[in-house]
Amino acid sequence: MPLLSSKAIEMPASPIRKLVPFAEAAKKAGKIVYHLNIGQPDISTPKVALEAIHQLKHDVLEYSHSAGFESYRTKLALSYQKQGIEVNKEDIIITTGGSEALIFGLMTACNPGDEVIIPEPFYANYNGFAVMAGLKVVPVTANIDNGFALPPVSEFEEKITAKTKAIIICNPGNPTGYLYSQQELEQLRDIVKKHDLFLFADEVYREFCYDGAKPFSTMNLKGIENNVIMIDSVSKRYSMCGARIGALISKNEEFMSAALKFGQARLSPPTVDQIAAEAALDTPMSYFEEVISEYVARRNIMVDGLNSIPGVFCPKPSGAFYCVAKFPVSDAAHFCQWLLEEFEYEGQTVMMAPADGFYATKGAGKNEARIAYVLDQAHLKASVECLRVALELYEGTQR
Amino acid sequence: MPLLSSKAIEMPASPIRKLVPFAEAAKKAGKIVYHLNIGQPDISTPKVALEAIHQLKHDVLEYSHSAGFESYRTKLALSYQKQGIEVNKEDIIITTGGSEALIFGLMTACNPGDEVIIPEPFYANYNGFAVMAGLKVVPVTANIDNGFALPPVSEFEEKITAKTKAIIICNPGNPTGYLYSQQELEQLRDIVKKHDLFLFADEVYREFCYDGAKPFSTMNLKGIENNVIMIDSVSKRYSMCGARIGALISKNEEFMSAALKFGQARLSPPTVDQIAAEAALDTPMSYFEEVISEYVARRNIMVDGLNSIPGVFCPKPSGAFYCVAKFPVSDAAHFCQWLLEEFEYEGQTVMMAPADGFYATKGAGKNEARIAYVLDQAHLKASVECLRVALELYEGTQR
Repeated sequence: MPLLSSKAIEMPASPIRKLVPFAEAAKKAGKIVYHLNIGQPDISTPKVALEAIHQLKHDVLEYSHSAGFESYRTKLALSYQKQGIEVNKEDIIITTGGSEALIFGLMTACNPGDEVIIPEPFYANYNGFAVMAGLKVVPVTANIDNGFALPPVSEFEEKITAKTKAIIICNPGNPTGYLYSQQELEQLRDIVKKHDLFLFADEVYREFCYDGAKPFSTMNLKGIENNVIMIDSVSKRYSMCGARIGALISKNEEFMSAALKFGQARLSPPTVDQIAAEAALDTPMSYFEEVISEYVARRNIMVDGLNSIPGVFCPKPSGAFYCVAKFPVSDAAHFCQWLLEEFEYEGQTVMMAPADGFYATKGAGKNEARIAYVLDQAHLKASVECLRVALELYEGTQR
Repeated sequence: MPLLSSKAIEMPASPIRKLVPFAEAAKKAGKIVYHLNIGQPDISTPKVALEAIHQLKHDVLEYSHSAGFESYRTKLALSYQKQGIEVNKEDIIITTGGSEALIFGLMTACNPGDEVIIPEPFYANYNGFAVMAGLKVVPVTANIDNGFALPPVSEFEEKITAKTKAIIICNPGNPTGYLYSQQELEQLRDIVKKHDLFLFADEVYREFCYDGAKPFSTMNLKGIENNVIMIDSVSKRYSMCGARIGALISKNEEFMSAALKFGQARLSPPTVDQIAAEAALDTPMSYFEEVISEYVARRNIMVDGLNSIPGVFCPKPSGAFYCVAKFPVSDAAHFCQWLLEEFEYEGQTVMMAPADGFYATKGAGKNEARIAYVLDQAHLKASVECLRVALELYEGTQR
């Protein structure tokens, strides 16, 4: 039997893989498990998008252009322009999810062996994309005590070597929910400009900003137009994760022309899903207003609830639908497993993602867990109560 | 502006890229251009698949499992079993097109710097996937004069080095339409076994076999169960190229478990498209009978027509819907461009793919072109007449 590749071995498994069998066993045993561990929203996909699928007119489900349907790119560009982001259709390649945009983008920008700096905790699948592209992830650690704000510029500077090719950010952030201010983004711009790096900005949560906060797109940073690569996706915006439609966006023509060759090799993104995504651009503003107000209510239940539990600290994020909380335990992974394996409260328990999987620094985030507040308010309230009772019973709780 | 990666530079562009502007200009000038250059069938997608899309019941378009819906994998495995191919649902990862299956498969099996042997001419995008995985393509040249049969085993043996990790075949073949016999596949099995290589078999054209020929799947080769990686796709089988649903299939558990980590990093293949692909498994046999008889008629028109033109030779393939023909010209790429730029016959011309883009050996296939016979019979007849007249007029025709 031939040996597998080193990439196959390095490729990280999901941060919750060890918990999955315990969650399954808990459900089999009749427990209700509140899944706070995944970012699969329960929000309905906009009707306009579902109707476009129901009304598909095609007799032959053909390939689209490798960069995506021109009609979709045109309309998508217009939607950015309406948000004050100057993007034209030539600056867009439609991809199979934001994931593919990142893979193509990293392979276009970076040579195997290059380094990418990422503020941690970060979306765990960036590790997988880095392995695929042969890159080394160099973390700069953000601190839960100041809400996961951008680490000081000096910490980035310390990590920059001759191999550094890019900085990757997610804004608003998964897993932290932190929304970078324009000032923080301008600090990043200065580093990127000084060292002539690429700046990959995963902005898939752009619409999910709360308490009047306004997102500032990296596409609007002046003076680094050729350095900025924006990643976007319809997954969260329209609660259509299963459509697998994303976008790779940049003003750097040479970059886009090279990235398109990766797109051509895989022929095209999915056709029906692009039609649905194009239709989704007509989603009424009222949809987003309802969704945002629902998420604000959920966030408040979850974050205020967590902070009301003795020893728990959770910064209140301004964006996305995640938060990272610090628990009074030494090993959150063990606590998460115990919740599924040993604990129940009125027949219920919760599943969270241990945060160490979102850090590249060994040992970091050991007492933290990521929570996605994508369940309805009643279930979130019940989840908080579960956690309150659990921490009273858990032997490892530091009192 | 930061430099792009070496992969971005090495990444090949489409073999027809240089022709595209000439085709566009020809159409602008009012010429009818028969597109023999792309494998986008005009055949209707089965009604069962389109109905599944029209009747989608979901309110939330959610992710599927990273390996694809279990119901789909179960039913797909059953359909292989009915064809006499022993595949279970555990042996299947649903991918976003056959392309993604090959990318994940190559990255799982091969280290950057490894070599993969491919009989040429081969599907040009294998070059792109090899660049993405950092691999060197080593061609073994098949000969048009014996219909592109498998080159002698000795030629494979000559190319095997310590770096050789896999052999890739496409059966029936794109671009040649050649169907490997069981005996040829057993020769490959012996090489693979002797050198403990992976054998990637792209079998996406399996249903397209003519004149009573039966395809023999590599999955049924005895003694190399852990070496065989089968690539499949619904694109051609159900004329649903735009669905982007493929599959990575192997009995090698360790391989599959590692490949799934690549699948998990990109979350899931598209949901609606999997539902359509699952429904497509209920396509009645009459659909395939009609399609096959249509392709046989088309092949006969095209291949017999080509062979009736003085100086043209085209082996008659037993599978897929492509053929590679040899023209009495020294530079088929120039001839193809001239057809679009200078030539017309009763307002019509044809676009073919110069075959040199399907060879890795520099200079090979210079007088050959690939033709996809995916147009209706009348247009194929007109295409043959165009080529006949064109070769009478073309200055470069060797008489």
